[in-house]
Order: sequence, then structure tokens, then C-alpha cells
Amino acid sequence: MLESTMMDVPLTIPTILDRMKLLFSGSKVISYLPVGIDPETKQPIPGRFEETYGQLSDRAHQLMHALTDAGVKSGTRVATFATNHYRHLELYYAIPSVGAVAHMVNIRLPDEQIVYIINHAGDEVLFVDNVFLPRLPAILAQCPTLKHVIVMGAVPQLPSGMTDFETFIAGKPTQFTYPEIDERQAAGMCYTSGTTGHPKGVVYSHRAYVLHSLVSASSEMMAVTERDTVLPIVPMFHVSAWGYPFTCPFVGANLVLTSVLTAPAFIARVLQDEGVTHTAGVPTIWFGLLEELDRAKAAGSPYKLQKLRSLLVGGSAAPRSLIEGYGERHGLRVAHAWGMTETTPLGTLNNLKPEHDALEPAARYDVMALTGRPAMLVQLKLVDEHDGLLPHDGRTPGRLLVRGPWVTGSYYDNPEATAASQQNGWFDTGDIATINTDGYMMIQDRAKDLIKSGGEWISSVDLENTLMGHPKLKEAAVIAIAHPKWDERPLGVLVVRDGFEVTKPELDTFLLERGFAKWQLPDAYEFVAEIPKTTVGKFLKRALRDQFKDYKLETSVTLE
Amino acid sequence: MLESTMMDVPLTIPTILDRMKLLFSGSKVISYLPVGIDPETKQPIPGRFEETYGQLSDRAHQLMHALTDAGVKSGTRVATFATNHYRHLELYYAIPSVGAVAHMVNIRLPDEQIVYIINHAGDEVLFVDNVFLPRLPAILAQCPTLKHVIVMGAVPQLPSGMTDFETFIAGKPTQFTYPEIDERQAAGMCYTSGTTGHPKGVVYSHRAYVLHSLVSASSEMMAVTERDTVLPIVPMFHVSAWGYPFTCPFVGANLVLTSVLTAPAFIARVLQDEGVTHTAGVPTIWFGLLEELDRAKAAGSPYKLQKLRSLLVGGSAAPRSLIEGYGERHGLRVAHAWGMTETTPLGTLNNLKPEHDALEPAARYDVMALTGRPAMLVQLKLVDEHDGLLPHDGRTPGRLLVRGPWVTGSYYDNPEATAASQQNGWFDTGDIATINTDGYMMIQDRAKDLIKSGGEWISSVDLENTLMGHPKLKEAAVIAIAHPKWDERPLGVLVVRDGFEVTKPELDTFLLERGFAKWQLPDAYEFVAEIPKTTVGKFLKRALRDQFKDYKLETSVTLE
Repeated sequence: MLESTMMDVPLTIPTILDRMKLLFSGSKVISYLPVGIDPETKQPIPGRFEETYGQLSDRAHQLMHALTDAGVKSGTRVATFATNHYRHLELYYAIPSVGAVAHMVNIRLPDEQIVYIINHAGDEVLFVDNVFLPRLPAILAQCPTLKHVIVMGAVPQLPSGMTDFETFIAGKPTQFTYPEIDERQAAGMCYTSGTTGHPKGVVYSHRAYVLHSLVSASSEMMAVTERDTVLPIVPMFHVSAWGYPFTCPFVGANLVLTSVLTAPAFIARVLQDEGVTHTAGVPTIWFGLLEELDRAKAAGSPYKLQKLRSLLVGGSAAPRSLIEGYGERHGLRVAHAWGMTETTPLGTLNNLKPEHDALEPAARYDVMALTGRPAMLVQLKLVDEHDGLLPHDGRTPGRLLVRGPWVTGSYYDNPEATAASQQNGWFDTGDIATINTDGYMMIQDRAKDLIKSGGEWISSVDLENTLMGHPKLKEAAVIAIAHPKWDERPLGVLVVRDGFEVTKPELDTFLLERGFAKWQLPDAYEFVAEIPKTTVGKFLKRALRDQFKDYKLETSVTLE
Repeated sequence: MLESTMMDVPLTIPTILDRMKLLFSGSKVISYLPVGIDPETKQPIPGRFEETYGQLSDRAHQLMHALTDAGVKSGTRVATFATNHYRHLELYYAIPSVGAVAHMVNIRLPDEQIVYIINHAGDEVLFVDNVFLPRLPAILAQCPTLKHVIVMGAVPQLPSGMTDFETFIAGKPTQFTYPEIDERQAAGMCYTSGTTGHPKGVVYSHRAYVLHSLVSASSEMMAVTERDTVLPIVPMFHVSAWGYPFTCPFVGANLVLTSVLTAPAFIARVLQDEGVTHTAGVPTIWFGLLEELDRAKAAGSPYKLQKLRSLLVGGSAAPRSLIEGYGERHGLRVAHAWGMTETTPLGTLNNLKPEHDALEPAARYDVMALTGRPAMLVQLKLVDEHDGLLPHDGRTPGRLLVRGPWVTGSYYDNPEATAASQQNGWFDTGDIATINTDGYMMIQDRAKDLIKSGGEWISSVDLENTLMGHPKLKEAAVIAIAHPKWDERPLGVLVVRDGFEVTKPELDTFLLERGFAKWQLPDAYEFVAEIPKTTVGKFLKRALRDQFKDYKLETSVTLE
């Protein structure tokens, strides 16, 4: 082996910070934060705050001084318990730039899990939004490693022993000299709450974040530059807001952050008023926004979203009907993406090949409904139950394995979970997927959500996505019910739109017309007021399975 | 320090190769190669060859088998002596994928320098284009390390001891199992011919090539995707054709390669017929093309270049008049870039900030004439003679230092040249530049080409670029002439367009109108038939200085 003559320059977060200051000091972070509660509607009143990247950089440097003055060193875990706003963004840069680790705590976890992850991570400092202060006493009492609590945002009375963020950084110099940073050292960490057991920790390196940003910014992925304004409607406490807090400043794109404010009419208004060009969120967000856009259009006062060129959807599968709804009724492109906490998260993104442009709309939406093609540096493969490679033919489902420089190779301090998920240098996603000859991947189901009927597999996700396109249905989940003859059969759990009714024969016809075989149709439907959801808006199948665990299908008797 | 949980996946050339095969097997490499000589015009007759990335990948894998069968191992240097075409591209992937090093020999060097670099690199295998066979006997006799010579392209009679490329790979399997590759190991090497002494070698790592490709492909740089067709009119034997052979297949962009065929009418025709969207070359190429476009337009039969969205210009400074000419007369965008063999080469690229869109055309071209802003991961700084940092105010010139993961930290096996060019982790470019508050860098001159007049510096490049915008001038070089009072004064060496004459007062007025001070004007002009150039088309100032070394300026007497 011959060594190259190249410099050994590490890929680190300070590289991004320095670039934003040097080239894009005028680009902006716009934060909408609740500044009060409307006494009539009981809804939060948003205030608008503007910061330039130049100011952000200065304040991040002040924060670095404050952190190190408070004893934060290389490797120290610093927790954030916060929504999307500029101070949280400053922490995203300051913490890793002093060699420490930003642990973004998922505020939606129950208190006992929050206590578990703070202790498991060994967090020493906690930055908390003012609005979450009421939750702290119950948590702090059980977290002995926490030495400092810093509060972000005004409070009537600062609890004793806590520091105000602005006081914390006040008077500190705006230039900090970074320590030497190894690109493989920890920069951030997130816990993913599995359906069983404790949450599992994933620790992101500087290298992973930088590479992820370079690829995310590329023309074939998010294609963002200084000319963009980006609204990530994905929490900064969940997989680093899909990397946008690093990707956007790296190329100078303006960021719009909206804390916990996600009401459809508010989002639509912000997209319009801020001239947002690219936005990202989970399907639930886009369902709500689509209804609002439909409503406004029908009312003759449509939102002006001419600058908006793509809505990225991820987190769970987006039904084809959603993508088609935006495209046909509002001329907006929904780009389907896939990733996980374990993949930083960008794994795949759906963009069309040039030859798809000539397709009829229906066929084009079929392609757009696929989960996308792998990002640069990400590799995918499908394996069967004996770990044998399966073909990329668009039909054969298999367990989806993934590999890449921003894919986790283990869970933090958790050898059991690590062993269960790693396989010869690949991460087992726990998803069942197909990949077609053009490389487009399609998540069929979580391995555990697949319905095994008479030796064949039925995809619950496929059924759900199609059912959700039915005009009378608001939500649809499909789960497996034990069956004496077929092992398992599908049951549909439905939320019907107000004022409508729907029958099984009607839904059977709807599904058969959309390509399902007779044996794949749900045997029965149950109607509920709401589908239970996880903290990040995904269907909580576990709860549904509990609820219907003693359910008896009529077909158990008739189908002999 | 806390380690991350991320996988340790190296950044390697096989990653690019696998991706092109998996996702873009239908994208194309179009090669135009000379297949004969027109007996009347004595010009080469181009043949058109088409290969898909799927085929390229298969053949590259066959080549890997053939190389390892021939004894090529990790670290073995394999030389190419070839122009731009598909077989050369196959070598770009096959050689590093077996862990060996592709040494791209600059065919334009004189034989004695070629002998020097082959021996200095220790090349063991040589791949040569059929057209260069006549040069080989003189070279081979002095290169004892070469064990194999493989000839690319048909020859009437294969010299004894040499192998035909197609025979070399025939019958080999199309699937090769890569060895383990360290991302910091050598993948390629190029020699840069300085103005003094032997050529100096730069060795590129897998990591450098991959990172360079990611950043080159980004929306703020070349912005290429699968929807693009790219014609690099930069030789693959010179700084890896500016990285296009790696960047384009990584994202699936089609490549057009034109061997040594660079006649303006031919290039214009290829840009039109292949629907090229992005192209790149040195100013000389674009001067020629602009004349051809002007001619065709005046003749009423303009080329149809509607798909062409950018012409990247690098290698030496592009005059503002060139950029303006394309923009105003043909609606084409010329993007100014800067780089060196030592920087893989992308250092800066000029794209406009959103606020520049509102500028008047003249002011906009002023910005476009700057050499651009640094690419992601590239850092620039300006220092004075005592290595003190200089301000980024757009006025203060200083020595330009550069740092980044694809910037060389040494010259291969050359401690003297290394010591002369490295400075505390930064590479000294030898250029004098300014950087403005927006981060736009402007090369003022090579340090050694600056004219030191009475304690002030005069930029020869500035004068040249402006003079070249004069309608009567074809080429203009400016050099320093020794002066008893002022130390040095500028002399202009000019090539006048056929049928024109130009006077000093006329040029003085032209320069004064364009912002030069009186003391910056050349003291005299000399007229020549051609400016001597380096092998890559840059002005060879050394030769001019030799030619005019005894020149006496009249001002030596009059200016007392």
C-alpha cells in the first residue's frame, strides 16, 4: 500500500460553523416560538425571531466559552430538552465544537424513559425550554449525574439552582479556539424507543454529520443552496431534525424553525410568508396541510406557494394518494424519503429518472410512491431468512440491510441490542422491502407487522396506504389476527371521516380495483375514533394488537 | 473523548463504481476518437463510440482481473499515457479498485520529463493510446521499471512485447472481489511541471477523490445529476480531468469524452448534438468557441445550445470580457473556478449570491469575473511576507494559502519541494490573491509574476485580462522588466488580430477607462505572432522573460 500525499484534515462540525460565518453571515434563522396563549382559542400565539448566521456563529462561540467554563470537556454529554429554535441550533454547533456530545432528548417520551436515557447517557448538563420546566422536578430528582440546568426562554421566576441561557453566555468572547477533534469522535446522540425494552442510543460522529450534510445537499437529494429557505417540520429532538440544522448552514440556506407549532393553517401561512422552497415532515403533517390547502383553494383564497419546490416526506410510508393529491390539486412535488434514527437518517430519497418524465401521471405517481433510491455512500441489500441475497426485481420482499458511513454499527453501551441488529458489517433495519431493477426501494412492512397468511406474506403497509386514499377514510391501520387455518389474516382498523359511512364490500371493490388479490383483502374492519400513535406520529401497532388480541374473525369459522 | 457508534465504512473508488452499476447502468459515456486523417484538410476524422455505465463497470471488473493476473498489487503504480476516452475511464476505476495507483502521465511533457516521472513514480505497467506509439521507443529504453505495455486502440502491427487492451481483458469475469482498501491509501497520481526543476508528484487518496466528488456534485458547485450530460474538455492526463470522471458516474450524469479533438467547430457541434448541459475547460478553449459561436450567429445559423446551462472555466484566470461575451451575445453562463494539481483540483467556484441578481449587468459581470468562493471543506487564507493574516476586504493582496482534505500535504518523495510549499498545515499556492467580504477570492497574480514597482504591486493578470477584452487584441501577456528607478515596470506583449493595428495611447485610454491608475499602465508594448504556452495552455511567462531579458524600457532614461 502506498499512502497518498493528501493533508489529514478531519471532517468536523467547526468546519460547517466557520463556513457559515465566512460565506453566509447574512443568511437567516427564523424562529417562531409560542409567546403566550390566546385566551379564546387556547392556542399558542407565535412570536417571530430573526437571527443571522453571523450572529448565530458569534453566540455559538460565546456558548463554547460558557460550556468549557462550566466544566464541559471532550466527551461530556450535554442534554437538550427543547423544540426547534435558534438557541437549540446554537447548541447543535457549540456542544460538538468543544469536543462534547449533544444528547437530544425526545421530549415526547414518558418521564421514566427520559430518566432512563439521561442516566444511561450520563448527561452532566441539561438545556431546557422554559415551557418544559413543569416536567423537570420529577426528572431531576432521579438524575444524579446532572450538574447544571440552563433554561432557554423567559420565565417569571427562575427555579433555584438553574441558570438563564442569556445570562450563561453573557459577556463571553465571540471567538473560541477549538480543541483538536477526531472526526470519528462523538458529536451527538439520540435514543430510539423500540416497541419493547428500554430506548437504545445511537451516537453520531462528526464525520457522519459532515458526510450526511454533503450528500443531503447534493443536487440529487435535497438540492439546497444559499438561494433556498428550508422549513424542517421535524423535531430537533428526533434524529437531529433529519440533519437540516447541519445541511442548511453548510450551504447557506435560510432555516425556518417553528418550535412545536404545527397546526396546518399556521404551517401553510409560514410556507407562504417566508417564501419556503423546501420543507420536510412526516405523513401526518402533510395530511393536515393537504386538507388546509384544499380548504383554502375551495374557499377561493388559495395559499401562494409558488416558491415551494419540494415537500420531503419520511418517518413512515407516504400513501400514493397523498403524493398524488399534492401533485394533481396543488402542483406540488412530494419527495418520498426513508431513514431511521440509526441512519442519521438519510437512507433513500425518491427522485425520478429522466425516462419517467414521459410516463402518464398514474404511472409516474406509482414510481413516486416508492421509497426511493439510496443516497451516495449508502448501500442497501435484501436477504432472506437464511441471510441469502435476494434479487432486485421489484417483487421479491426481503429483510432490508443497510451500510454506510452514517449508519450505526452498534447501540451505545447495549451489547444485546447491538448483537440483535448487526450482521457482518450491515445494520438490519427490521423492515421488509423490495428493490426494483432501477434501484428504487419500497418498504413493504416492518418485519413484525407483516401478515403471514397460508405461507404467503401480506403487506399491512400496502393495504394501509391504499385504504388511506379512499375518500371516506381518514386513517387506516391493518394488523394480523391469529387464524386457525391460515396462521394470520388481516384486520383493518379504520377512522371514517365525519358524516360518512363505509362498508366492507365497498372497500373490497376499492382494493381489488387497485391491484390487490382476493386473498390479500382484510377479512374484517373495525371502526375507531383514532389510531393510537407513537411519539413521532407513527401508528402504534403494538397498542392496536393489544386492543384486538382476543378478536375473533368470523372467517375463523367459515373458512375451513 | 467518546467514540461514536457509527460504522467504519471507508470512502473508496469502488463505492462510486458499484453505485454507477446499480443505479445508473443506462447512463452513457460517449467517446469521440480520431479514426483517421482527412486527406484534404489533414484534420483527424472523429468516430463516435457509446458505452453504458453498466458496460463500463463490467469491463472495469474484467480489467481488475487482468491487472491482478499481470501481478499488479496494492500500491503498484500503473501509468496511463492517454487522452479522454472510455478505456481510459475504465482504467480510472479498475486501477484504484485493486488497491493500485493510476499515474496519469501528461502526454504534453517533453520525453525527458516523461522518463523522469515514470522512473520517479516507479511505474510497472503502462497503458498507451495507439496514436502515441511512435513516442514510446525513446521513452521505454530509459524506464527499466516498466514490465508491461498495453496498447489502447487498433494498430496495424502490435510492437513485440506489447499487449492489445481488448486481448488483455478478453474472457475475464465481470465480477471482481475488491481487496480491503484504506481510504487514505493512494488511488491516483499526477505530476505538476513547475517552471524550474523536475516535475513534482501529487498522490491522491481514495478519500480525497470521493470527498471531492461529493462536493463537486453539490448544487452550489457543478450541480450535476443523472439528468445532465457533461463534456470535460480538460485532459484526463491533467489533474484527473478536474475530477469529472469520478463526479459524473457517482450521480449518473452522462459523460462526453473527446480525446484530443478540441477544434472550436467540432466542440460546438458536439455540445449541440449531444445535448451537453455542463462543460469545462481552460480559457483558450472558450476563446476559440466564442469566436465560432459569434461566427455562426453572424452567418445566421447559430448553434442550438439551449440545454447548455454552464461553462466552467479554470486553469488560468478568465478575463471578464470572455464571461461577458458569452453572457451578452449567447445567453450562456461562464462559471469561473480555481484549482491546482495540488488541490484535486476544485478550490473555488463562482456562483452569484441571491442579492447579485438585482445588479446591473456590468456590476454582475464584475462579480462573475472574480475567481469564486471556496468549495465546502476547502479553507483559504491570505498572509503577508511575515506570514501574518491579512484582511478579507477585497483590496489587500496576499499570498494565498489553502487547506482541505483534498489538498496535498507534501510532494511525493520530494522533501525540498514539500518544505518550500507547506506552512503549518497549509499549502502555499504561490498565488497572490484578494478575498472580499462575501468570501469571493480573486487571483491577482502568481507571486513570481507580480510586478513590484516603486514599493507597490502591479498585477500582470489584471492587465492581461483587461487587455484581452480589447477588440483588436487576440492575446496579451504582461511581464516585469527591470528598471533602475522603480525596480520593475510592466511590458505588454501582444498578439494583434489579423488586419488590425493598435497604438499605445489607444491602449492607455482603454485601460484608464477600466479603472487602472496611470502608474499601473505598461510602459511599452511589443508585438509577437504568438505567446508561448505551457503544455496545458497557460502563458509561459518564463519563456517571455527569457526572450525579453535584455529589453530596455525607454522610461529607464526618461523617468528620472
